Amino acid sequence: MNGPNLNLQGRRDREVYGAESFEVFIPRLRNLYPTHTIDYAQSNIEGELIDALHKAQEEYDGVLLNAGGYTHTSVALRDAISAITIPVVEIHISNVSAREEFRHTSFIGATCMGTIAGFGLDSYRLGVEALLNR
Amino acid sequence: MNGPNLNLQGRRDREVYGAESFEVFIPRLRNLYPTHTIDYAQSNIEGELIDALHKAQEEYDGVLLNAGGYTHTSVALRDAISAITIPVVEIHISNVSAREEFRHTSFIGATCMGTIAGFGLDSYRLGVEALLNR
Amino acid sequence: MNGPNLNLQGRRDREVYGAESFEVFIPRLRNLYPTHTIDYAQSNIEGELIDALHKAQEEYDGVLLNAGGYTHTSVALRDAISAITIPVVEIHISNVSAREEFRHTSFIGATCMGTIAGFGLDSYRLGVEALLNR
Amino acid sequence: MNGPNLNLQGRRDREVYGAESFEVFIPRLRNLYPTHTIDYAQSNIEGELIDALHKAQEEYDGVLLNAGGYTHTSVALRDAISAITIPVVEIHISNVSAREEFRHTSFIGATCMGTIAGFGLDSYRLGVEALLNR
Amino acid sequence: MNGPNLNLQGRRDREVYGAESFEVFIPRLRNLYPTHTIDYAQSNIEGELIDALHKAQEEYDGVLLNAGGYTHTSVALRDAISAITIPVVEIHISNVSAREEFRHTSFIGATCMGTIAGFGLDSYRLGVEALLNR
Amino acid sequence: MNGPNLNLQGRRDREVYGAESFEVFIPRLRNLYPTHTIDYAQSNIEGELIDALHKAQEEYDGVLLNAGGYTHTSVALRDAISAITIPVVEIHISNVSAREEFRHTSFIGATCMGTIAGFGLDSYRLGVEALLNR
Amino acid sequence: MNGPNLNLQGRRDREVYGAESFEVFIPRLRNLYPTHTIDYAQSNIEGELIDALHKAQEEYDGVLLNAGGYTHTSVALRDAISAITIPVVEIHISNVSAREEFRHTSFIGATCMGTIAGFGLDSYRLGVEALLNR
Amino acid sequence: MNGPNLNLQGRRDREVYGAESFEVFIPRLRNLYPTHTIDYAQSNIEGELIDALHKAQEEYDGVLLNAGGYTHTSVALRDAISAITIPVVEIHISNVSAREEFRHTSFIGATCMGTIAGFGLDSYRLGVEALLNR
Amino acid sequence: MNGPNLNLQGRRDREVYGAESFEVFIPRLRNLYPTHTIDYAQSNIEGELIDALHKAQEEYDGVLLNAGGYTHTSVALRDAISAITIPVVEIHISNVSAREEFRHTSFIGATCMGTIAGFGLDSYRLGVEALLNR
Amino acid sequence: MNGPNLNLQGRRDREVYGAESFEVFIPRLRNLYPTHTIDYAQSNIEGELIDALHKAQEEYDGVLLNAGGYTHTSVALRDAISAITIPVVEIHISNVSAREEFRHTSFIGATCMGTIAGFGLDSYRLGVEALLNR
Amino acid sequence: MNGPNLNLQGRRDREVYGAESFEVFIPRLRNLYPTHTIDYAQSNIEGELIDALHKAQEEYDGVLLNAGGYTHTSVALRDAISAITIPVVEIHISNVSAREEFRHTSFIGATCMGTIAGFGLDSYRLGVEALLNR
Amino acid sequence: MNGPNLNLQGRRDREVYGAESFEVFIPRLRNLYPTHTIDYAQSNIEGELIDALHKAQEEYDGVLLNAGGYTHTSVALRDAISAITIPVVEIHISNVSAREEFRHTSFIGATCMGTIAGFGLDSYRLGVEALLNR
Repeated sequence: MNGPNLNLQGRRDREVYGAESFEVFIPRLRNLYPTHTIDYAQSNIEGELIDALHKAQEEYDGVLLNAGGYTHTSVALRDAISAITIPVVEIHISNVSAREEFRHTSFIGATCMGTIAGFGLDSYRLGVEALLNR
Repeated sequence: MNGPNLNLQGRRDREVYGAESFEVFIPRLRNLYPTHTIDYAQSNIEGELIDALHKAQEEYDGVLLNAGGYTHTSVALRDAISAITIPVVEIHISNVSAREEFRHTSFIGATCMGTIAGFGLDSYRLGVEALLNR
Repeated sequence: MNGPNLNLQGRRDREVYGAESFEVFIPRLRNLYPTHTIDYAQSNIEGELIDALHKAQEEYDGVLLNAGGYTHTSVALRDAISAITIPVVEIHISNVSAREEFRHTSFIGATCMGTIAGFGLDSYRLGVEALLNR
Repeated sequence: MNGPNLNLQGRRDREVYGAESFEVFIPRLRNLYPTHTIDYAQSNIEGELIDALHKAQEEYDGVLLNAGGYTHTSVALRDAISAITIPVVEIHISNVSAREEFRHTSFIGATCMGTIAGFGLDSYRLGVEALLNR
Repeated sequence: MNGPNLNLQGRRDREVYGAESFEVFIPRLRNLYPTHTIDYAQSNIEGELIDALHKAQEEYDGVLLNAGGYTHTSVALRDAISAITIPVVEIHISNVSAREEFRHTSFIGATCMGTIAGFGLDSYRLGVEALLNR
Repeated sequence: MNGPNLNLQGRRDREVYGAESFEVFIPRLRNLYPTHTIDYAQSNIEGELIDALHKAQEEYDGVLLNAGGYTHTSVALRDAISAITIPVVEIHISNVSAREEFRHTSFIGATCMGTIAGFGLDSYRLGVEALLNR
Repeated sequence: MNGPNLNLQGRRDREVYGAESFEVFIPRLRNLYPTHTIDYAQSNIEGELIDALHKAQEEYDGVLLNAGGYTHTSVALRDAISAITIPVVEIHISNVSAREEFRHTSFIGATCMGTIAGFGLDSYRLGVEALLNR
Repeated sequence: MNGPNLNLQGRRDREVYGAESFEVFIPRLRNLYPTHTIDYAQSNIEGELIDALHKAQEEYDGVLLNAGGYTHTSVALRDAISAITIPVVEIHISNVSAREEFRHTSFIGATCMGTIAGFGLDSYRLGVEALLNR
Repeated sequence: MNGPNLNLQGRRDREVYGAESFEVFIPRLRNLYPTHTIDYAQSNIEGELIDALHKAQEEYDGVLLNAGGYTHTSVALRDAISAITIPVVEIHISNVSAREEFRHTSFIGATCMGTIAGFGLDSYRLGVEALLNR
Repeated sequence: MNGPNLNLQGRRDREVYGAESFEVFIPRLRNLYPTHTIDYAQSNIEGELIDALHKAQEEYDGVLLNAGGYTHTSVALRDAISAITIPVVEIHISNVSAREEFRHTSFIGATCMGTIAGFGLDSYRLGVEALLNR
Repeated sequence: MNGPNLNLQGRRDREVYGAESFEVFIPRLRNLYPTHTIDYAQSNIEGELIDALHKAQEEYDGVLLNAGGYTHTSVALRDAISAITIPVVEIHISNVSAREEFRHTSFIGATCMGTIAGFGLDSYRLGVEALLNR
Repeated sequence: MNGPNLNLQGRRDREVYGAESFEVFIPRLRNLYPTHTIDYAQSNIEGELIDALHKAQEEYDGVLLNAGGYTHTSVALRDAISAITIPVVEIHISNVSAREEFRHTSFIGATCMGTIAGFGLDSYRLGVEALLNR
């Protein structure tokens, strides 16, 4: 599940985020785990991410959540994660602790199972690994 | 008017929020005040709450607002409350000052008529009382 | 139970606190709840409030506490509230979150059952309601 | 492009924001620049503003953005602005540095071309001037 | 009106506070202003100072208040001063801004008429001068 | 000398403070040091503790002071301790540095001879030991 | 009116401030507004800027003030602006909110009519526009 | 000795500073102390105030310094005061602790003999009194 | 490479860190990646970790570093990581952002390739995955 | 167990730390408790103190730890103390709360049994008393 | 180049700054470097120091700047240093990091070549050495 | 005496630290001062630096200490410097005040004789000069 601006992945600031888009990456990821169902959702709207988290617990065994800019400002997303019972992994494409000061704070981290940050899109694959090994 | 994650009331963390859902509570509340119209709205989307506040002043005499996690982060909601002329009461189910540090700050409190926090769903009934006695 | 300066209620800054004194209000409040015993105490001395809280648990089922200026500075009052077992409701006549920054912090809130602020003397009636509905 | 509560312009707090609505102002602005296309959009939803910014770069040469209350809280909007390549000018109707402390911080300013604040609706005309002179 | 520890004046730390006690100083002060009534009160108890301020406005035209350590910690004293209508002058024997960091903050200063600090017991005489010239 | 809420020792929160009251402990302590005079005083009123400290220097060779909640908020107590010449030892029953953040600050510590915290009522015995070995 | 280091405009750090000097720009600006008198003054001395502001209100209808580094440190300039009655517009050549943290604070902004920052020397033309449209 | 903007005294913001100018006040002050020499100097330039302080110790027995806005920002003035040996009294016309937060900090206070603030121009007369009584 | 206290893994606080020791885990990890060399080192001494990092770049293609408590306090380790050219992955067994405030700060994160935290010992396997996929 | 610089005890700054060295004090301490084994260890290396704590729990019933300068900076030592099961008492020779601001913070205090500070070398004897009375 | 109060060198606080004046020191310094031109300038006025820095780059190969109190408060001086191209060395006579907290911050340090502080007037000679060795 | 990572000098980040190693520099430095004994020591271990400082005072007349990353975090090193009686000069190769915020704080500076920073390896030669001129 992806948050704001991640629909531009592959087109925006490639030095930071890499050149591969999710349209290319997701199928590649599914090929790596053919026996599992991997769905993809993205929204720029904070409340829609909350809606999606609420629904996720009825259909999935876990969520990879890259909340983008909402990571650092959203108490509501944090509450949504702690309101559901399936594990959520906090994902970041870039190494947030090497960027601006305000990106070092995560409101959602405390309610997630763990964090994976800084490995480009491979952060998502590592997130799948983490969920499967649980 | 309810903000993010309150659609899960009765299902999430019952120790903090209690077991009664709004589906049960609202009719019970209406029974207590049979001569008044009490409508209910909930959204996880910050901007929809702002829209709803704008419209509320055309139809209602007051608003009980539990802004959930947006309470602590939203300047836009604060501006929406001060932009309308009907009274808004800040409501919280749990005692926010006994929880995490970041829940002690309320952006919306200064523009509300007052605050009621910590009495479970009864906070809403007390809010109705407060509006009626105005 | 009222803290510092509340003995002047009705005489000081009426725009903020209203014009009704406790001499008038308390009898009116008792009339609303004729089957309950409502006693009134006020002190400007922090330690006497602590004494009163200690004794209250032997005679009452709950306390409405407007600690006035001690709300924002007293760890000792907080300790007194958590040392007794009857519920205490934090009451404020004015909407403290719309006033000076230092009034946004409450040392006692975390140990109270909940908070009611901003409804004038009606805050006390709402406090009685909250205790009765417990 | 206007953010939260600006749909109420002309109706809310006229002492701060003036009495002219955007319904009146935008045509007047278009008359001043007849050879340019000036479109208008407003949303109270943070994510819709992000969507609109993403689309804007395909159709426009620049954006005037009054992000209202989101100015001070939104990392996601900041990321959206830095993800697109057309210039964005930060606009405020009121003089934000003469208002509450929390309005002195702008998350989006660092990724905008510049800031114009405090000149009422004329801030928008100055913004157009700034874009044209680029 | 003197706050905590000022009963020890002349006996404690003479390098900071000087060697003259109030028993000696007050008569000397009265001699300087023989046509005015100058009364003296001291208490180590915060609430008694509040009581005294409340009563002072019925009998006096002004108060010199050296609140000692309560200067830096008491919201209740501040509220007491703003609750009465006669002028209060904040007095300090020592130059508080040359001492520990926590003595640089005054909760009561904003509600007083003005401040005189650092001139030893002469600060009181200057306070009388300030009240008389009003 | 004990500060606010310590009159409830043995009755309040036994997990933190232990089950033994001062009525039981003080005689036991006197038995350990039969050749010394050990007096006991408690007050919930900050100013009475200041009074007691002033008087203590005329009758005693040292003071064990558990200032309870005033430890963290009282500049006036600090001034009282530095105004007297007999040694004062700061005592805490619980390990304050393992509790809430605001209990990590001591206004009085800098003017005491030393601090003993965290050993239950045995902290008082260690305080006696510290004074005797001086 | 220009503050410290702006006499070097066109010669220092051209990437930040551009290559055009005020010797070239001011005549160009006058040509754009031939019916108005536009005078230019610069000083590196804070107090001379204050002097100039005092005198300006006798001769001009408004001031464009780029206070350079004094923007972020001068209470005295702020007082000077609020002491005069003609409007002052805060001007910055660079986008100060995209630079060092200490440049995000403006002492003078609250007393100015508004702020224009980030458009190179065109910020001054926009400032003239803002004053004329007043 | 007066700092920035005090040359406008009597003309600027009379509600805060009063209507009397120094041209009127200084002669009146001299009449009160006919046997003493009272000279007057004012500069808007921080460094000229420093120069004047250096020279003052050769000709005068004390200085009344109203450093205006430099009070809150100038380490250099503080150093100048501590570099000379005659006493300096910090003077303010208005009650600075009742104004903006940044006016509550004084860099110069720690090196002055004492502070007198909030009594209008009478603060200067009190300052003379304080110096004479030394 | 493991930092302080990780030699106790499997024996200390199993609820937080799990029950498996590195003696058991490392062979299991090597089995998963039989074609790679995986060496293990642990030290409680900050400087020995720095020595080890310096040497690592001569023998290895990457480092998994769980710096334990030094993560939050060591500028020297940060400098060591940025002084070497092989990639270092920051590893934590527990979810540090759900623990004490001081564990939310990482001095080393900015110089690492990325961070993996919260997945128990599986964090190390994910780290190997991240290095291999580079 | 002693931390950095305590090997110089008796030779460095005797006004703060006293003149007796541990070579003299430890035998004297053993004489006071002849039926107990008291061992002594000192290291200037943070990690060696951690090693020693790990080993201590196999041989001793409790530890007196004066961590010197590491008290205020070491998360790793804190983790070591909470990783072992025998009680650790935090010891300081000087009264740390009367010294520099940065010595008022203790990272290790929260994981110790309690704290004894300010009684010179007698702090160690009191620590033994505290352990024995447990 | 010397800033505020350094004209008093040799006369003010000799314990901190030493007894030698610049009138004596500069000729001595010139004797040490007879083949170089060493000019001396001092001003108490911030803006004159800025003027002097601007001019310096036309006549000199480097500047030793002791900005005195302006070191800690002047963004304008910082900008002046970064606007010129010759190297500037930050000089302090006293060891500023052993003095008041506010002297630990240097606005100008980041734009200087380096810093030399604490060696009395010898700091200047070391500064010449540093420039010559460049 | 060199702290952590300085063993890599000449090999790591040459843009910041220069290309010359200490193996080359130290002999060159000795040649400049042939009549003095200059010894060299380096350790990555904080406690070994403390040991070395303790021993240094028996063999040397002064120490040049580049504590690297420990400069900003070590209270223990600070204590070691103040525990010895020979002068210690704080040395930095790079201009620390032009680097990250956390490098602007020095724990050791207050106990050193002075600081020399930013002149590359020449900082050490200047340090020798400073010690010799003492």
